[in-house]
Amino acid sequence: MNVSIIAVGTELLFGQTVNTNATYISNQLNLMGFNVMYHHVVGDNSGRLKALIISTFVESDMIILTGGLGPTQDDLTKEIVAEAMGVDLYFDERCYREVKSYFDDRNRIMAENNRKQAYIPVGAEVFHNEAGTAPAFGIEKDGKCAICLPGPPREMKWLFENCVVDYLKRFSSKQMYYRVIRTIGIGESDLETKLLPIIDNQKDPTIATYAKEGECTLRVASQRETMTEAQLAVENMIREIDKLIGKYIYSYNDEELAEVVVRKLRENKLSLSSAESCTGGMFASCITDVPGASNVFSHGFVTYSETAKAGVLGVDSKIIEECSVVSSEVAVLMAKGAQKSSNSDIAISITGYAGPEADEGRENGNAFIGYACGNKLGNKSGFIEINTKRNDRKWNRNFFKLRMLLVVYNIINDAI
Amino acid sequence: MNVSIIAVGTELLFGQTVNTNATYISNQLNLMGFNVMYHHVVGDNSGRLKALIISTFVESDMIILTGGLGPTQDDLTKEIVAEAMGVDLYFDERCYREVKSYFDDRNRIMAENNRKQAYIPVGAEVFHNEAGTAPAFGIEKDGKCAICLPGPPREMKWLFENCVVDYLKRFSSKQMYYRVIRTIGIGESDLETKLLPIIDNQKDPTIATYAKEGECTLRVASQRETMTEAQLAVENMIREIDKLIGKYIYSYNDEELAEVVVRKLRENKLSLSSAESCTGGMFASCITDVPGASNVFSHGFVTYSETAKAGVLGVDSKIIEECSVVSSEVAVLMAKGAQKSSNSDIAISITGYAGPEADEGRENGNAFIGYACGNKLGNKSGFIEINTKRNDRKWNRNFFKLRMLLVVYNIINDAI
Repeated sequence: MNVSIIAVGTELLFGQTVNTNATYISNQLNLMGFNVMYHHVVGDNSGRLKALIISTFVESDMIILTGGLGPTQDDLTKEIVAEAMGVDLYFDERCYREVKSYFDDRNRIMAENNRKQAYIPVGAEVFHNEAGTAPAFGIEKDGKCAICLPGPPREMKWLFENCVVDYLKRFSSKQMYYRVIRTIGIGESDLETKLLPIIDNQKDPTIATYAKEGECTLRVASQRETMTEAQLAVENMIREIDKLIGKYIYSYNDEELAEVVVRKLRENKLSLSSAESCTGGMFASCITDVPGASNVFSHGFVTYSETAKAGVLGVDSKIIEECSVVSSEVAVLMAKGAQKSSNSDIAISITGYAGPEADEGRENGNAFIGYACGNKLGNKSGFIEINTKRNDRKWNRNFFKLRMLLVVYNIINDAI
Repeated sequence: MNVSIIAVGTELLFGQTVNTNATYISNQLNLMGFNVMYHHVVGDNSGRLKALIISTFVESDMIILTGGLGPTQDDLTKEIVAEAMGVDLYFDERCYREVKSYFDDRNRIMAENNRKQAYIPVGAEVFHNEAGTAPAFGIEKDGKCAICLPGPPREMKWLFENCVVDYLKRFSSKQMYYRVIRTIGIGESDLETKLLPIIDNQKDPTIATYAKEGECTLRVASQRETMTEAQLAVENMIREIDKLIGKYIYSYNDEELAEVVVRKLRENKLSLSSAESCTGGMFASCITDVPGASNVFSHGFVTYSETAKAGVLGVDSKIIEECSVVSSEVAVLMAKGAQKSSNSDIAISITGYAGPEADEGRENGNAFIGYACGNKLGNKSGFIEINTKRNDRKWNRNFFKLRMLLVVYNIINDAI
């Protein structure tokens, strides 16, 4: 079944509000096996809204509208939907009582214009709104269906979960299942090239790739008669994908790399510490962003100056002078210092040039990641060098952070 | 001039990505005096995209498209725009060299399908993309204009700021000037109430308020015949605003609070250090995100465990036991430890519960920010307590970070 989403509201066209409702509803619809055709946004303008509804019904069997159900003059979604579908509005006593008691319960006086909210298109199924005053509804006529929901995301979600999901079940025949796989260390086009043998001529499951900064995500989705069939098709496809690009995959369940690292540290009863120069706390911050990180991460050092590297981590000033502060030697000594001070199983460090101004003769995007492990991991230590060739400070810092996570991930997996 | 925005990408219809590009572009277009008519989202489907472009041009003079400019098979925006406007594509040598050098500079092999990105519609003005590989462009024909931009928000914004704004100026008769004022410590509705006398009946300059998490932003914009008139109108309005809410304003130039703090530290030749528990490096990270932070910030400590607080910062374990680890006493001792170890002029610390699970009898969102100053600032020390009453870990961590910045800001301004 083809569904389109129309958001009504001039604030969206002004760029004041992001249309997160369309994202939420699309996600829900896809999970239920509906095919989302278009998102449209239109202002509070009756002529344009009516024309848009009529033209959208040409290709779509259903339209879900959000916004414009409030009590004010420019809230006109309900009236226009009724007009476009050729039905009248009637005054619904129960809706009126609900709107009124919403105000009574809060010891507030109901404004006269709230009466407007109790008018409902003839033949509509009302979704009684416990999260606000706008009654929502679904209406079917001549093989087309319109669902009207309020704009505030909290109200809209409440109605979707509590009323719309049940209402939609009557329209759905197929079941949808999908998994999101996350990779690192391979670009989007290389990934696609490697997957070409299974992407080409593939109808179901579908495989979609998305590039994120420094990472790449794959979505494998199947729509079948039963959920069991859909799951089986996705799982089989994931096994094929695994054969081709398995070594780049760090999550089969749409997890962030930091989440995976924290989970694996916990599973392996390993502790972690960090010593950061150019990332300045970003690594520690992304690890501690994961609930439960306190079980595996206790110490982080941000040693931005040479004095801090020497004073806090005990890096020999002579080596800083001889090898330069951005060097593999200093990176390793920083990691060793953090490891010693925290007595952690793994210590990870970084020193580098994020930009905008590298030292003379050096390039932005050049960094050294050091690591040093405790007894449990054989006291091994080492480094990797990075050259992003970019001047973009934010981009570099984020990339450096991801590579630090990758080094920790590889140490846990005994791949370093 | 009427403009519509079309975002191309099945991931948007799957609900995997939020269409923040449309919001950003709408905001920019409104500032420049363009009238945004519609936002549309369509999947990677050539037939639908072509029909949508043609029907959108009925009411709109210009379409800005985002997405579908990549190297893969389903990237088809450029081809369809050329088709809809009735022009051919040609192979652009300069674009090809730029795409190729993008890979060469990173010591990466260019995949064969990246060649596709160098084809450009005949008659288009190319926007040379320094933020990625997708060449963007604007094309005018028969009184209609199409602008094609890549989908990744970072690339899109770079191109918009560096190329599209200039390109758009030829379509605009009026001159636009605006300033963005940033405030902290006051909610959006309180801010609006205080500004009511000047917001009411105000046509130009316009004043728009936007709430961000923990902060509030004001945009003052004027559109006049000349730039001088527009600037004068905005500056006069800012003086009025200053009289009403001056004490909440920390930037008149849309700076981040961290930028202002780093700038003021530099101006006052003051150094800063940090000791973080629940924010886990976020504070250090946002300070070091500002270019030039190395002049004022040398030491950051992430002491997530009690052992780290005692071992690294010298917080007396007995006091942790007596007062609890989340207490004003521990916050102040953490700041004193960081100040001593780094010999900085200002040390700031935090200990608290971000969520999801506070210790028994304590609430998520409760935190203590401590500070300790060196000789230059009279060795003063102290703390503030925060209670957000929220369980949201991400929200709390961000709010805590902003409050730490505010405390440092107030210390520099001698307001603490």
